[in-house]
Amino acid sequence: MNTQGDNCEPHRPAHPGIFTMREAGKSDHHSAERCVDFPVSVVLPAGGTGERTGLQTPKQFCTFLGRPLISYTIQAFESVPWIQSIVVAVAKENMDLMMDVIQRFKHRKVRVVPGGSTRHRSICNGVLALGEEERPAVGRPKVVIIHDAVRPFVEEDFLCKIAMAAKEQGAAGAIRPLVSTVIATTSEGYLDHSLERAKYRASEMPQGFTYDVISQAYQRCSESDFEFGTECLHLALQYCGTNAKLIEGPPTLWKVTYKRDLAAAESIIKETLSRSACVITGGLAEAVNLADALRKAVSALDMELDVVPDLMGDNARCLLKEWNFIQVSVSDSCLSEVEAILVALEAENRALLHPVVVIWVHFSRTDELPVSERAPTAIMELASTAKHRNILIYGIQLKQSKHWERSVSRVAEIASALIRERSPALVGQLLQA
Amino acid sequence: MNTQGDNCEPHRPAHPGIFTMREAGKSDHHSAERCVDFPVSVVLPAGGTGERTGLQTPKQFCTFLGRPLISYTIQAFESVPWIQSIVVAVAKENMDLMMDVIQRFKHRKVRVVPGGSTRHRSICNGVLALGEEERPAVGRPKVVIIHDAVRPFVEEDFLCKIAMAAKEQGAAGAIRPLVSTVIATTSEGYLDHSLERAKYRASEMPQGFTYDVISQAYQRCSESDFEFGTECLHLALQYCGTNAKLIEGPPTLWKVTYKRDLAAAESIIKETLSRSACVITGGLAEAVNLADALRKAVSALDMELDVVPDLMGDNARCLLKEWNFIQVSVSDSCLSEVEAILVALEAENRALLHPVVVIWVHFSRTDELPVSERAPTAIMELASTAKHRNILIYGIQLKQSKHWERSVSRVAEIASALIRERSPALVGQLLQA
Repeated sequence: MNTQGDNCEPHRPAHPGIFTMREAGKSDHHSAERCVDFPVSVVLPAGGTGERTGLQTPKQFCTFLGRPLISYTIQAFESVPWIQSIVVAVAKENMDLMMDVIQRFKHRKVRVVPGGSTRHRSICNGVLALGEEERPAVGRPKVVIIHDAVRPFVEEDFLCKIAMAAKEQGAAGAIRPLVSTVIATTSEGYLDHSLERAKYRASEMPQGFTYDVISQAYQRCSESDFEFGTECLHLALQYCGTNAKLIEGPPTLWKVTYKRDLAAAESIIKETLSRSACVITGGLAEAVNLADALRKAVSALDMELDVVPDLMGDNARCLLKEWNFIQVSVSDSCLSEVEAILVALEAENRALLHPVVVIWVHFSRTDELPVSERAPTAIMELASTAKHRNILIYGIQLKQSKHWERSVSRVAEIASALIRERSPALVGQLLQA
Repeated sequence: MNTQGDNCEPHRPAHPGIFTMREAGKSDHHSAERCVDFPVSVVLPAGGTGERTGLQTPKQFCTFLGRPLISYTIQAFESVPWIQSIVVAVAKENMDLMMDVIQRFKHRKVRVVPGGSTRHRSICNGVLALGEEERPAVGRPKVVIIHDAVRPFVEEDFLCKIAMAAKEQGAAGAIRPLVSTVIATTSEGYLDHSLERAKYRASEMPQGFTYDVISQAYQRCSESDFEFGTECLHLALQYCGTNAKLIEGPPTLWKVTYKRDLAAAESIIKETLSRSACVITGGLAEAVNLADALRKAVSALDMELDVVPDLMGDNARCLLKEWNFIQVSVSDSCLSEVEAILVALEAENRALLHPVVVIWVHFSRTDELPVSERAPTAIMELASTAKHRNILIYGIQLKQSKHWERSVSRVAEIASALIRERSPALVGQLLQA
């Protein structure tokens, strides 16, 4: 029933990215659990000021879909069973903000330490904190993974490769092909020469080090390294003689640097949350027919539907798996079925990490009133309350008519748009198909 | 009246990016027209296959907001008065697609030539085509600007800098700071050394060359350069002895490489289109009051409203300037005012390049029926037709009540979301504030 692996807790729905990778059969999740049999901890330097995004808030605290970027990154690590702890180094002025994020999104493996004035000082503080670990269950790690708070899409299988290579070689880092030609400039601002692209790579994150290598590197390095350096792999080479193993990472490792990157990150999360939905029919033949027609119509829009009569017994798996629910009601224009979904979602704390969409599709026969006069007000009120709990409710009405097929494709189109856009401003609206 | 500068034609609304820069007073548009007093043409190599986006369509032909990426880029150049022609080099299999884009979006300055098997061969074909120009009004250019089809946000003031430097130095190119550390790898995949970031730059586009330098460089360069080279500045240095002037470009020059970049580009266009809207009141006191209240409410949502009684006389400037229109109707629940806006928009061909949003806000006093029974069907039918002409119509209803202020802020919130999201699936809906 539980698609999230053994360590999944019902209150901690998996990060959709990770979930999807496993669904797609791409992750070597179980082999990863077997191969990483040594303690691994993570240091996340998050002291940046976000100048380049053009935003007032430091970019790691910029919010999309109701959650700050850094929480997505933390969650990506928390969902990996063999990672024992995450140290986040945060500037003093953002300490309260960080503690609030941890509390609101119920992060568990996280410890916060003060950031330093430079990136290396922040990382060093994090590494020192790992060395001083006093909880007996959480010993000093064998391998330390260093990552950026602003690279939220890191996945378990790649972390496993970095951790294994770090344990073997002392140091390992992600690389990517260069996107642009790199050129050397003269002091007057003219082209001096261009580098042969094939010989060079961009150094990205995550990087991994044995605890010994990274802590020695920071003990031995100079004030100038602390002040002006940016590359941990370079410190490991210079002060410990360790040539890092370089591993090509996926493009999803990219760093959220500019405002446009926040939009890109949001669109990736939205797309991942919108690949499938659960349709609840109540079992009535007319509702089942509609659900089947809907399934065909949305598959043309790249969305899969899981049709179930209710969310009881085995079907309760949908509550742990889906981010979108479509309740089909025939004739009966009361919202009690939607209320039941809300109760079930809240019992699972399902909307903790991502907004959940619930769409009430009301299907009336031609000889009936389309919907009770009370329905528009009732759904608006229900939606206003649910919105505070991160559940977005919308309604769609359709009538039995000779244009039934066209109406079904309209329902599919509207439902798909509502699910993809997850607009808080439009909750409670009763739309016409 | 005309905010687009002298060369603005009513049928060619400016690119929103360029429009905004001018509005913000950042562009040295007039000085640019004065300083670039020599013929400049553009070569856009667009033969790529788009492997890295993970999409089937080559990325320059990927569509957002109903228009392919390459059309946005072409438009950015077309709107610059001193650029005389644009040569696009396209793979043979995409030739028809390209001709269709030119026709649909009424591009004028464009000539299409066959692309080559590599980037350099495509650019070379473009440069050769410029040399064979036979139209007497369009002579051989003094300066050739080379750009990428997948960098849609290039702006006039930066193009001016590149063109001027190219004319003076023979060659000029855009650079950006390196985002990642660049490292050299050993043949076994280990770190060899890392480069000192401050000494190097990423070479970006656009680049500019005098016609003589770029055509000589291509005449003299080797087969190996054609096959494996990527950097035009390097050819100018090696074969003409020209050290290019390097000019730091804005971050908006970035290249659409991955699928996420398409989402980022779409969000930039949407944001630019959503900064302001025109409210048409009809002049009735109640409508004017509502419009003023709306103006305050949306300013908290970072949107500006221009309130006018109608679109006649001086107010017709809104038709050429705004991408969003809000028609306030008091009591009268007929849609004739919205129909009038549609007629005016079509007369200006306003929705040629970007979808235009029209929101009908219907305001009824408590003692009246909220809206005629016919209205939901009427607005749906009107919206279905308008959608084919790239005009997105939505409706919002509000009632005079004791919660009037709350209703106004709901209207603002809904209107702002509709304008920002520009969802074709939700057109014709009559939403409740």
